[in-house]
Parts: sequence; C-alpha cells; structure tokens
Amino acid sequence: MKFKLLHTDPNSKARAGIVHTAHGDIETPVFMPVGTIGSVRGVTQPDLEKDIKAQVILGNTYHLYIRPGMEVLEKAGGLHNFMNWHKPILTDSGGFQVYSLSPTRKIKENGVEFTSYLDGSKHFFTPESVLDIQLIIGSDIVMPLDECVSLPAEHSYVRKSVQLTHKWLKTAKDYHDNRPGEKKQMLFGIIQGGTYADLREESAKFVADLNMDGNAIGGLSVGEPAEEMYAMTDKVVPFLPHDKPRYLMGVGTPDNLLESVALGIDMFDCVMPTRNARNGWLFTKNGIVNVRNSKWKDDFSPLDPDGESPVDLFYSKAYLRHLHMCKELLGMMISSIHNLAFYTWLMQEARRHIIAGDFATWKTEMVKKVTTRL
Amino acid sequence: MKFKLLHTDPNSKARAGIVHTAHGDIETPVFMPVGTIGSVRGVTQPDLEKDIKAQVILGNTYHLYIRPGMEVLEKAGGLHNFMNWHKPILTDSGGFQVYSLSPTRKIKENGVEFTSYLDGSKHFFTPESVLDIQLIIGSDIVMPLDECVSLPAEHSYVRKSVQLTHKWLKTAKDYHDNRPGEKKQMLFGIIQGGTYADLREESAKFVADLNMDGNAIGGLSVGEPAEEMYAMTDKVVPFLPHDKPRYLMGVGTPDNLLESVALGIDMFDCVMPTRNARNGWLFTKNGIVNVRNSKWKDDFSPLDPDGESPVDLFYSKAYLRHLHMCKELLGMMISSIHNLAFYTWLMQEARRHIIAGDFATWKTEMVKKVTTRL
Repeated sequence: MKFKLLHTDPNSKARAGIVHTAHGDIETPVFMPVGTIGSVRGVTQPDLEKDIKAQVILGNTYHLYIRPGMEVLEKAGGLHNFMNWHKPILTDSGGFQVYSLSPTRKIKENGVEFTSYLDGSKHFFTPESVLDIQLIIGSDIVMPLDECVSLPAEHSYVRKSVQLTHKWLKTAKDYHDNRPGEKKQMLFGIIQGGTYADLREESAKFVADLNMDGNAIGGLSVGEPAEEMYAMTDKVVPFLPHDKPRYLMGVGTPDNLLESVALGIDMFDCVMPTRNARNGWLFTKNGIVNVRNSKWKDDFSPLDPDGESPVDLFYSKAYLRHLHMCKELLGMMISSIHNLAFYTWLMQEARRHIIAGDFATWKTEMVKKVTTRL
Repeated sequence: MKFKLLHTDPNSKARAGIVHTAHGDIETPVFMPVGTIGSVRGVTQPDLEKDIKAQVILGNTYHLYIRPGMEVLEKAGGLHNFMNWHKPILTDSGGFQVYSLSPTRKIKENGVEFTSYLDGSKHFFTPESVLDIQLIIGSDIVMPLDECVSLPAEHSYVRKSVQLTHKWLKTAKDYHDNRPGEKKQMLFGIIQGGTYADLREESAKFVADLNMDGNAIGGLSVGEPAEEMYAMTDKVVPFLPHDKPRYLMGVGTPDNLLESVALGIDMFDCVMPTRNARNGWLFTKNGIVNVRNSKWKDDFSPLDPDGESPVDLFYSKAYLRHLHMCKELLGMMISSIHNLAFYTWLMQEARRHIIAGDFATWKTEMVKKVTTRL
C-alpha cells in the first residue's frame, strides 16, 4: 500500500493519512511548495527543510524539459540530485503549461504539439513521452498528460476534451504498468470536466476505475468562483476510493485549503504563497497582512509573533515593509519563508485536529481568522 | 585607543590591526559588505553572521535618509535595531550618492542641495546635518560630507573641490567634538584630490593633521586605471598616522584589495561581490568563474570545493548555472553568499599571512590566482 488512511473526521470528510514514496513519507493533508524549475522561488533547500518543514515539493515538467533540459537532468541523475533535495517530489505532466504558455499549441489524438516559450522551437508531448520525461526527472509522484480546458467552455467541448484526457490516461497507465523494472514512481489520474457536474462525475468514475496510485482533480482554480470549485470537488470525491490520496491541483488560499480538506482532499499545490510573498502579502494565523500598507511603517513588533518560522520573530513588520517598498530581495526571501511555513503549519494543524476529532469546529473558526484583513 | 596596530609586514606596508567600536571589534584588513538601504542584497542577517562571517557592514546614508527616512529610523532606535544586526556598521556621508544619483545637485559653500531620486523633493546636506543623520542611524563609524569629483577633472577644479572638502571636514570635526555626551561614534576623515599627486599629498597632510579616528581615501575606483589608483594610494599612505585605520572607499576586485593591503590599507567596501554575484560572476581562490558559461552546463562538481561557505559544497556548478540562466532568485542568493564569504576569507587570510610574516610572497601568488579566468 502506498497510502495509509489513518483517520476520518466524524463531522466532515476530512482525512489524515500517509503517502509512502521512494523518498520518504508524506503526512496528509499536505501542501506542496511549487519549485517550478528546480527551485522554490526565493528560498534555499535548507530553508525548505528546516524553516518551512516542507515534506514534498512540486516541479513543473514543462519548465524542466525546456531548462535545464533532459540531457542535463539525466546526467545529474534526476532532479533530486540536481537540486540537492532528497525528500519527495511530485511533477505535473506539463499539460497545464503547454496550454497556458504556448498559445499556438495543437492538440492531436496522440498528444500535443507546442512551441517553446523560450526559443520558439517545436516540441511534441505524448502520454508516453511525459512519463519518460518524468522518469528521467525521477519524481516520486508523476502526473499523466491531460487537456486542461480554459473556463468558461461549452459542454460539448469539455465533453470531447474529457474523453481525450481519459484516452491519454489509459495509454499512460498501460505504458507505466508495462514498463520493466520496479515501480518506484506513483502515477496519479487526473479528473477533468470543467464546471459540469455530469462530466465531473463521469470523469471521476472513469479515473477511479483505473485504480491509479492516487486521484487528482484538475482544471479547477482557473478563475471560477470558489463556490463552484467546492461544488465540483464535492461532486467528485464520493466516487473516489478511500484508500488512495486525493490531490486538488493548483489550490489555493488558506481558506480554499481548509474547505477542501473538509471535502476530503489530501494534497494541494499553489504558487500563491510564494508569488504573493514577493508582493508583500503575508498569510498568518490571524489574517492577511499587506505589509506594504503604510500602517506598518513604524510597527517594530515581530513580523508574526505567532509565526512558525525563525523569520517571524527575527524581523519586524516595519523592516519588512521597508524591504518591500525598496524591492529588496531580502523582503521576498523573508516573506516566502513565512508564507510557506504558515501553509505547512496550517495543514499539519488540520491533521492534528482531524486526528483529535475536532476538525470541523476548528476549521470554521480558522476560516474566519485566515480571511480577516489585518 | 580605538585602533590597535598588531603587526606590520616586513616586506610590504601591509598591516594587521583591530578597530574597537561600540558594537565590537573589527579585525583588519577587513572587507565590509555593502548593505545600501538596510539589507546586504540577497543575503539574510543570519547568513551574514554565520556563513559569510562579516565583521562589519556598510550602510548608505543617502539611501537610508530617503527610505525608510529618519522618523522611522529614530523610532526604531537606529539601524542596528531596525535590521536586527548587532555587529559594527559604517555609514558613508551620502556625498557620493548625491553626486551619482542627483544630477541636478548644487554645491554651495555650506553644503549640497539635491533632489530625491525617488520623488524629486528638495533636500540639503551640510557637514553638520549628515552627522546628525548618522547619529540617528547609530552607525559605529561615520563619514564626513565631502565632494567626490568625477574623473577626469581639471587640476584647478579638483583643487577647489579639495579645499571645500577640507573646510567641510573641519566643520564636521568641530561639530562632532563639541557635541555633548559620550563619543560612541568614530569619525573618519576623507582624503580627496583626484589623480593629482600634489593635491592628494596636500589633502593627506590636512586630514592627518586633524587627528581623526581614521583616515579614508575617497574619489578613487571611479573608472581610472587600477595602476593610477595604486599610485595615488601609495602617494597618500606615507602621510597617514600608523595608529589610525586606513579605509580605501569603494574598492574593489580581489586583486585590488590585495595590492592595496600591501600599500598599507586596512578597510574596504564595494558592491562588486554582490552585484557581480547577481550576474553569475563568482570570485574564488582559484580564479573567476562566470557560471553562465556553457562549459559548466553539466559540471555537477561542487560550486567551489575549496570554498568557505556552506553553499559551496551544497550546490553544484551545473545547478547554479541553471538558476542563473533562469534568473531564479536562488541563483543570486547562493552567489552572493559565496562571493561575500570569499571576500571575508581573503582578508582574514591576508591578516594571517601578515601576522606570520609571509604576506608579500603569498600576495604575489594569490593575485595571480584570483585574476585567472576559469
């Protein structure tokens, strides 16, 4: 078993579990910092391990394929060695970036053709090739090629797209299963279907039936209202097996995470904590701080007296504000560590409350707190 | 005594000493990382202390005066508290930035009028006001207002300028000496004179006679050939007292530092190690590495096997190259730590050889090494 379900909250669908990977265990629910191109932006690998306490990070296959490229990654012996990070890594399939970064991509029956954002060179991703690429990357959890539809989209288009994603998933699963040697990588399935409940249900059933190592929900958090995202998640989860991890891709704010944990989700990733950090936007246990606000100008109290990382007591709000006003790198560095450490804490604390049996009441209170504007 | 001279090299003018400041001792020769605006770019305060082993950092009065401004710095209780750095700080007078950042400045008999690069507001620096500003900043070593002439310049212009700088220095010294209370700050004098030997000599004598806490050489390393800088330094040093620290402002490359130590200089500052780091330019014991060069593409050996900071063994050349090619913040962070740790090491090693009595031969060999292109 690659996933062990430990507890389910009696008053919600929230779960606590453990994912066993080739590079160690991941306690769920978990947030995965995004290390797009072999680096979680603005933080060091020792920061990730010691100050942020990240259990797993995410890499983007598309970006890594473009730079440093497969030759370098293969010679390095994979991404873990290349970046000197020896805890678990999950990689996406590259599909999402093909759609978002290469406007001229062409979707064909057997894959997707796209031009590199870097030099305009032509490339072709297939369900098989993205697994080959992720094998070289050496990630512990790999994702299959899917089509990620921009919302809103017509039902007929999404339906066709879901069918293609399913076909590619079947191809990927067969390719993965028939590869010789020990299976060190976990291959997840991705459920698509836009915001159409019937398509989401159809997709959830199809993916669940394939008995993947885990089940992901893709194509959400792409601009639709949060309520719609929760509705789709709630629609999908009942069809997913209890003994497999569930991953809601690209989500989200602290309250998005808490609400989705309550709906039965185990894993998350998002650029928000790091991207917002670089603009001086801090998530804390007591609410959101826009540190550029002039109200912090001469507030010399610690950045976050209740914070979970060393930066929180070491630097003051006024100093961090100054750094952001001057666009100093240190401001981005401090804020990134803070936000990621907060996200780690939030998921570990959720886990603690799930195990203690009082998650639902804690969650309601916490959602109020983390959405407060300080 | 605020400076103790410990050793002088028998075969050069190189010296080893200790500067005693209100925030601790500084072993010389020493390189001071530049923390322009309350942050040494791309490195944290714990990095500075633990990995770089910086003994003292430099702050820019002009920048700090503009942002965060004196009100915030005064409320913070000075720059040490504001940035949570409790080792020595030296601040420049703001003069250099007035000339380089405010093209519309007007030099008057009693000071210099300039407009803020940030919002165009008008300001006036006098010999007295820059000391008041630095008193609020709370730096351990403060610099007097001077005029820094762009080279090349006419002898007649430089002569007039030197006289003004001398007049301002006398005003500053009187103001400093007559201020009530304990003198916690050391006030240095600045020798000007462009590349005119006669003016440099005149200035050195004038400044030396004022019995300042230390003597700085300004207005060099502004584009003139290194040989001319060494010639001017060599011209000036014989007139400076042995029992006061000597500071060559804004210098320089590793070989500039070594040659200048041999001429009797004790203190340096320069943005080069951090600025060049951000472009992937590393200084090492064995030479200069442009890590963006494609030759490092698949060199997975440690960044610097002989390096002095933890990053040197933790990250590989190939990985650092990748980070720089992708303009990842981590590339700038790693390189900045490396370069600053190297500069610290270089000055500590020079000190060791001065004390051991073999500085001159070591220096000749080291200059060859550090100027090699790897």
